[in-house]
Amino acid sequence: MKPGLKEKESKGDRPAMSIDQGIVMGGKAGSADELLKTAAHRAAEALGAQAADIPCEIAEPFLAHIKGHDEVKRIPMALLPKLAQEIRNKIHETIQQTPGHYASNLGIVELTVALHRVFDFRRDRLVLDVGHQGYPHKMLTGRAHLFHTLRQENGLCGYPHPKECPEYDLFNTSHAGCAVSSVLGLAVADRKLERDTNLVAVVGDGAMTTGITYEALNNAGHLKENMIVILNDNGCSISVNTGALSATCSAIRKSGMFNSVRSKGRELIEKIPYVGRDVEKFAANVFGAASHLTHSPGAIFLDLGFKYYGPVDGHDFHALHEWLEFLKHEKGPKLLHVITQKGRGFAWSETDPVTWHGAKPYEVKEDGTAVFKKSSKPKPPDYYQVVSSAVVEAAKQDEKILGITAAMEEGTGLAKFHKEIPERFFDVGICEQHAVAFAAALAKGGMKPVACIYSSFLQRAMDQLMHEISLQDGLPVVVCMDRAGLVGDDGPTANGVFDLAYMRALPHFVLMAPKDGQEATEMVHWAVKQNLAIGIRTPKESVPSEPFTKEFRPLELGKGEIVRQGEKVAFLAYGAMVAQSMKAAEILEKQHGLKVTVANARFCKPLDGELVEQLMKTHDRVITAEDHQLMNGFGSAVLEECCNRGLDTRKVVRVGIPDQFIAHGARPWQLKQCGMDPDTLVALALK
Amino acid sequence: MKPGLKEKESKGDRPAMSIDQGIVMGGKAGSADELLKTAAHRAAEALGAQAADIPCEIAEPFLAHIKGHDEVKRIPMALLPKLAQEIRNKIHETIQQTPGHYASNLGIVELTVALHRVFDFRRDRLVLDVGHQGYPHKMLTGRAHLFHTLRQENGLCGYPHPKECPEYDLFNTSHAGCAVSSVLGLAVADRKLERDTNLVAVVGDGAMTTGITYEALNNAGHLKENMIVILNDNGCSISVNTGALSATCSAIRKSGMFNSVRSKGRELIEKIPYVGRDVEKFAANVFGAASHLTHSPGAIFLDLGFKYYGPVDGHDFHALHEWLEFLKHEKGPKLLHVITQKGRGFAWSETDPVTWHGAKPYEVKEDGTAVFKKSSKPKPPDYYQVVSSAVVEAAKQDEKILGITAAMEEGTGLAKFHKEIPERFFDVGICEQHAVAFAAALAKGGMKPVACIYSSFLQRAMDQLMHEISLQDGLPVVVCMDRAGLVGDDGPTANGVFDLAYMRALPHFVLMAPKDGQEATEMVHWAVKQNLAIGIRTPKESVPSEPFTKEFRPLELGKGEIVRQGEKVAFLAYGAMVAQSMKAAEILEKQHGLKVTVANARFCKPLDGELVEQLMKTHDRVITAEDHQLMNGFGSAVLEECCNRGLDTRKVVRVGIPDQFIAHGARPWQLKQCGMDPDTLVALALK
Repeated sequence: MKPGLKEKESKGDRPAMSIDQGIVMGGKAGSADELLKTAAHRAAEALGAQAADIPCEIAEPFLAHIKGHDEVKRIPMALLPKLAQEIRNKIHETIQQTPGHYASNLGIVELTVALHRVFDFRRDRLVLDVGHQGYPHKMLTGRAHLFHTLRQENGLCGYPHPKECPEYDLFNTSHAGCAVSSVLGLAVADRKLERDTNLVAVVGDGAMTTGITYEALNNAGHLKENMIVILNDNGCSISVNTGALSATCSAIRKSGMFNSVRSKGRELIEKIPYVGRDVEKFAANVFGAASHLTHSPGAIFLDLGFKYYGPVDGHDFHALHEWLEFLKHEKGPKLLHVITQKGRGFAWSETDPVTWHGAKPYEVKEDGTAVFKKSSKPKPPDYYQVVSSAVVEAAKQDEKILGITAAMEEGTGLAKFHKEIPERFFDVGICEQHAVAFAAALAKGGMKPVACIYSSFLQRAMDQLMHEISLQDGLPVVVCMDRAGLVGDDGPTANGVFDLAYMRALPHFVLMAPKDGQEATEMVHWAVKQNLAIGIRTPKESVPSEPFTKEFRPLELGKGEIVRQGEKVAFLAYGAMVAQSMKAAEILEKQHGLKVTVANARFCKPLDGELVEQLMKTHDRVITAEDHQLMNGFGSAVLEECCNRGLDTRKVVRVGIPDQFIAHGARPWQLKQCGMDPDTLVALALK
Repeated sequence: MKPGLKEKESKGDRPAMSIDQGIVMGGKAGSADELLKTAAHRAAEALGAQAADIPCEIAEPFLAHIKGHDEVKRIPMALLPKLAQEIRNKIHETIQQTPGHYASNLGIVELTVALHRVFDFRRDRLVLDVGHQGYPHKMLTGRAHLFHTLRQENGLCGYPHPKECPEYDLFNTSHAGCAVSSVLGLAVADRKLERDTNLVAVVGDGAMTTGITYEALNNAGHLKENMIVILNDNGCSISVNTGALSATCSAIRKSGMFNSVRSKGRELIEKIPYVGRDVEKFAANVFGAASHLTHSPGAIFLDLGFKYYGPVDGHDFHALHEWLEFLKHEKGPKLLHVITQKGRGFAWSETDPVTWHGAKPYEVKEDGTAVFKKSSKPKPPDYYQVVSSAVVEAAKQDEKILGITAAMEEGTGLAKFHKEIPERFFDVGICEQHAVAFAAALAKGGMKPVACIYSSFLQRAMDQLMHEISLQDGLPVVVCMDRAGLVGDDGPTANGVFDLAYMRALPHFVLMAPKDGQEATEMVHWAVKQNLAIGIRTPKESVPSEPFTKEFRPLELGKGEIVRQGEKVAFLAYGAMVAQSMKAAEILEKQHGLKVTVANARFCKPLDGELVEQLMKTHDRVITAEDHQLMNGFGSAVLEECCNRGLDTRKVVRVGIPDQFIAHGARPWQLKQCGMDPDTLVALALK
């Protein structure tokens, strides 16, 4: 047994979950905790001596031979726990060395195996919502031997990706909540084109808080297409889950209430009186209601037109197999509620799945605990840490300041806010639309909301930024957009490279970006004191180890600054690109004797037109540098300003992200791909 | 009685809706039809002779004296139907002369009166979702005397507007689904700032299909703030409603099932076993379930953490008054399901509320029917009609083409598609996010979806345009964006002036706009034959009466055309601005002897760089003209292209919408406000 593997419990009865046992109404059929014990029991059984005697057409280690459905289905049920253990071990071995999603993948191992055993997703359709739980899927579809390249340049993507595996991966994804829409569209297309497919969406309970999931369920219930939505309920989205529905799901988990299949229960459920019946049917209705009782917390899915089944233990191969086989032949839209344990299999991630959601390289200690490896040399904090600390600090000085996150408490650093000022902290769930509209109303009501939302996810709230904030003369909401620009190993779904495009066109919005940690802090403190709608963008990287200017020059609306005065060539940089430009400037001076100017725009809107004019009039070349698409980016704003001021833009060169998606890899590598690294900037200045 | 007023029925018993009568379980308490008869009965009663004897502190006509809550509450209950009739008459008189929202306002008269009677919204909080049902609210808050200026330049806005009435209008709105978020934010702010307010959101059943409403309900249920959400259920969103939840609401309407207040029913409802109880509680649970039975179709709201009340007749002043008074003192998040009749009060709009959703000037004929007035001179069709006809025509030639709308069947012209090819028509409800993700998956599945969505509403799907379409190498979805540019009397919420900003930055998207009806048709036919993600934007106006070019020059990806060759000055126009530029060119030639060039860009992305270069090299001035914000618009694309090609942009002048919101008014007036009208273009060319 690998070090750190949790000892599996060897006792525990199989709960009353079998499809043979009929309905249990309201009884203590087994709590979620009890359900979850069973897989451990099975695993222990299967890994025991008797497993060696079971004949299998596939040699061990299984993963070395599995290319997809054909191989998975040839492994006997009793040996599947061995396969599951192989998958867990590979996740363990890989993430020990390279950062990646961890707890979500450990939780979905058995479910993924069961899905590939029952369905053939070369022709059937599988969409994993978000996709950060796709590692077992990758391993079972011929990519186990490449798994060590995860999230690295030219290696496997951390999410499903059609270019990596067109047979099995339909969409490159990572934004929550699209899977039901995707599967519904495929269901209609397959019916129209007379393709006989099974369609499965796997949706986490976190994605149940996002509006598009609801929109799609409601539409699917109306269209009545054949499809299976699997609610992978691990009680967490990414942070601990929130929202009233989450409480409902939690109640189901705790109660152990469930209904069973091929039983009278299902027939009764179908009889629930949606339309009032005659008085003589009343008695039948009461009985129907008693049936309804057993699943009433899932009634929301019934109201949306889905048949609701479950909950089922997501680590019980037998149960999963039987339910999936059954649902395969059921018509219409169906929801199967599967209970899984996030982080399952290792003691450290079972006990703290939130910390282990996205794991860094770690080591297992002798006492069986695990700790993240410390980086060899101490590095300065990340921008999100600096920004969130400043938000907390500001909130301590001003009681009107509220902290808002959309299920990214840890990622945005607002966990600190939650801990220190819980009564003014709001995690609204994975719903950026509501987060922004809610923040706007808080501002209207006289509070000072600070919403911390990743740039790429803020795209979801474009309409609310316009309709709720900008249109209301710019209500004073501060939006802190971290992960703006290229984000490294998460790849193109997470790159936050469109925010200037969709936000700069919105009247009344102020857009700014700091050059270093000191300025990031100042920007937060400045922003909360303005009566303005403000967006602050910061990259996914550490702040520069030293502030670029010794004495901080106070912020003034729409005013940039010259950080380094030179001649001939000027870099006019926004946000993260100031640091890159400064590095280039140093190289230019040391290696080429060219002293160039570096200006820090500070504001993209309102842009410092005087600074632009000054640079344009005193230099031969002005290089705009931004960590954003070149189309409708910071450079475009500079060109517009030049046009308005009658300045000759032939001396302007724009550096930024070209009109394409930049693949995953280390951020410096990504910057180089786009010509945004210091060396390329140097070459550009010399050309 | 005004001509056309529907004869009110004088018979009909009050149904078992009173708060005194206790719960009725599953019985035939009165169908929605029956419920709706009662208000007619009351109105007839109140308007009869006896009403004259009731003393009232406010003189008639009431509306001349009403400034808000203080006056409304001084009108005795028995005289309220008279007030309602005054409101309906004013809507009738006004919309007979000027276009406006009609049926939605007629349906909400009694509810609005009751709200202003029970609450004082100078301190309490009222947010009308969408806001197109705000006319009665305007009349009751001191704006009745201005009602004839509705939707005209410097007149009343067609939606709530804080600048018009800061006391009573909190937000300028029109996009569906934000009201619950808004009220939740205000609830938190008011609690934090210790303001003792009542908070009310009025949400149509259509807005229940949109994800943000669900997100906000889920969050509100979690936060447990005191607030009332009124579900104004008229069975329609704007088109006839869709979605599984709509069927659920419809079932409630049909069944006449309801629960009552201050009754055992409510207590029972609170006992619904969310958490499994011991076996000894089972009997109690069954009884609880019998209670649950009476509202099970509304269980979705319970699952979201709301107490559900209703349905209640939305035209019954007594019932509304009693329910609102009761809910005012109830704690926590509450949902009151109110049944209203869209278009109530006039025979034509009661029988056809969809046609009468947005009404044009009309006349009432002697037989009591009403018809829209025909314009004195025949005008060419609107762009949306031309585009949707082309979509239908293309779909008849290609069975893979599907038509998708987000609850805008009439507005987008897809009603024709629905009628002629129903099996390939999809109205997904007010959910642009899902509409786009669904379309993307249809394209992935091999179909050719055409999604017709207004430009301003497409903002909601920015993330799906990026994540579901663009990121997947540009799945071949055609998005027809009507109402792009300034939209006239609907005002800034509906102006579609950001689409180039958020779409041009997305890799793989092709963006185009036609100059006239012929080209609009060609663009649709061309687009569905490409294997590309394509957006086609068209304005809210009639196509030019004659095509601009006699022989149509075939479309070629990324190629514009010169429509009129001249010298010195060139207009490089996109979409609707070609027509404005052509008019300017004619004036310039006839009145000033200056023959200018007019180029039709056709594509904003990919932009015709060669055409740009050619114009720049052969003219002294190039005027870019677009019906979009100048920031991140078409002109910005031209500047970027010039910068890339080393062209001197000092000769470029950009015409478009400045960095502000343009108020409602006739579209030509709006164009003039922005300097986009022919006269201003002429002046610019001569300068």
